[in-house]
Amino acid sequence: MNFFQKNITLPAYRRGFHLITSAILKEIPEVKNIRTGLLHVFIKHTSASLTINENADATVRTDFESHFNHMVPENTRYYQHNQEGPDDMPAHIKASLLGSSVSIPVTDGKLNLGIWQGIYLCEHRNEASGRKLVVTAYGV
Amino acid sequence: MNFFQKNITLPAYRRGFHLITSAILKEIPEVKNIRTGLLHVFIKHTSASLTINENADATVRTDFESHFNHMVPENTRYYQHNQEGPDDMPAHIKASLLGSSVSIPVTDGKLNLGIWQGIYLCEHRNEASGRKLVVTAYGV
Amino acid sequence: MNFFQKNITLPAYRRGFHLITSAILKEIPEVKNIRTGLLHVFIKHTSASLTINENADATVRTDFESHFNHMVPENTRYYQHNQEGPDDMPAHIKASLLGSSVSIPVTDGKLNLGIWQGIYLCEHRNEASGRKLVVTAYGV
Repeated sequence: MNFFQKNITLPAYRRGFHLITSAILKEIPEVKNIRTGLLHVFIKHTSASLTINENADATVRTDFESHFNHMVPENTRYYQHNQEGPDDMPAHIKASLLGSSVSIPVTDGKLNLGIWQGIYLCEHRNEASGRKLVVTAYGV
Repeated sequence: MNFFQKNITLPAYRRGFHLITSAILKEIPEVKNIRTGLLHVFIKHTSASLTINENADATVRTDFESHFNHMVPENTRYYQHNQEGPDDMPAHIKASLLGSSVSIPVTDGKLNLGIWQGIYLCEHRNEASGRKLVVTAYGV
Repeated sequence: MNFFQKNITLPAYRRGFHLITSAILKEIPEVKNIRTGLLHVFIKHTSASLTINENADATVRTDFESHFNHMVPENTRYYQHNQEGPDDMPAHIKASLLGSSVSIPVTDGKLNLGIWQGIYLCEHRNEASGRKLVVTAYGV
């Protein structure tokens, strides 16, 4: 049984959805030592999130940003938590809709993703510094 | 410490929400060898997803389909990713709202689910072939 | 390799979003015995859910309740599952949008959360008794 864990700080990304699969794997090469297991990726923030979706056409990521802005609009009359800017409370809600972690099977030293799957960093704030992640790979 | 992992291909399901708890357990009988642990179920697709919800009244699953179609409509003016049909981009968004994996405690060789809980396959495309899953059971 | 698991029953909470990080840690002090690992928290219900979000300003939790009520309204014309009250079907949908589990890295005997992160119990019913959780801490 192996348990590898790394604290990572990503570079700052602009508001939107971004592919980070390669950036994560570069930080935890120990995945190749796991025959059967899982990779857990966690984001230590409440206004950015992680999800898995299409790794090919960039318009998918643009449409995610458009639709989340529509589904969780800024400046609704009912938000009371307004003091950190109009993008702040929607960022918290989007973060919980998408989630703070993803976990992916590891098989024979590699992520067992579908061919069209990639890990997205979902940056919900207009201005943010580099986000902190904790990646944990474990298995036999 | 035990780590069991299986690649599964489900039969094709029509668009909607479907109970697959029994289908999964049939494929990974090794769950009964785990006294304390977890079962992780992962879907290798970006237009179908997994969630846990009520395993009894079928109208719950019908209402999920109705509400997700309302919350993530087809043919919005702002989608740019349109070339694979009007159900494609909504399918990607629904998949990330619900998630690509579920994980469930295992206790004394059984899933420690609530009595009303079951695992749903959420099929978001009008036409799809059998979806590929990776199930990983681990524990002591 | 250690695997600790506890069944917990929370006190009843009113409809809304509630911080339960301390309540969970009090029930599973074995987290301090794990140098590198994960904590998995699972809710055995389909009308309440778990998420991670801001642990400071209480208006964030109020705004979550307001926005989820807006995004998943009661009494839509298309719900067929109505027999358990107008808050029931929305509760099921909210539960799947947020999810039935959270998992958090454990580092040096402590949850490796961001400083603003806490675990929320999301109670979606008007009247509910204490919710049952299963918490599993594992690692080396």
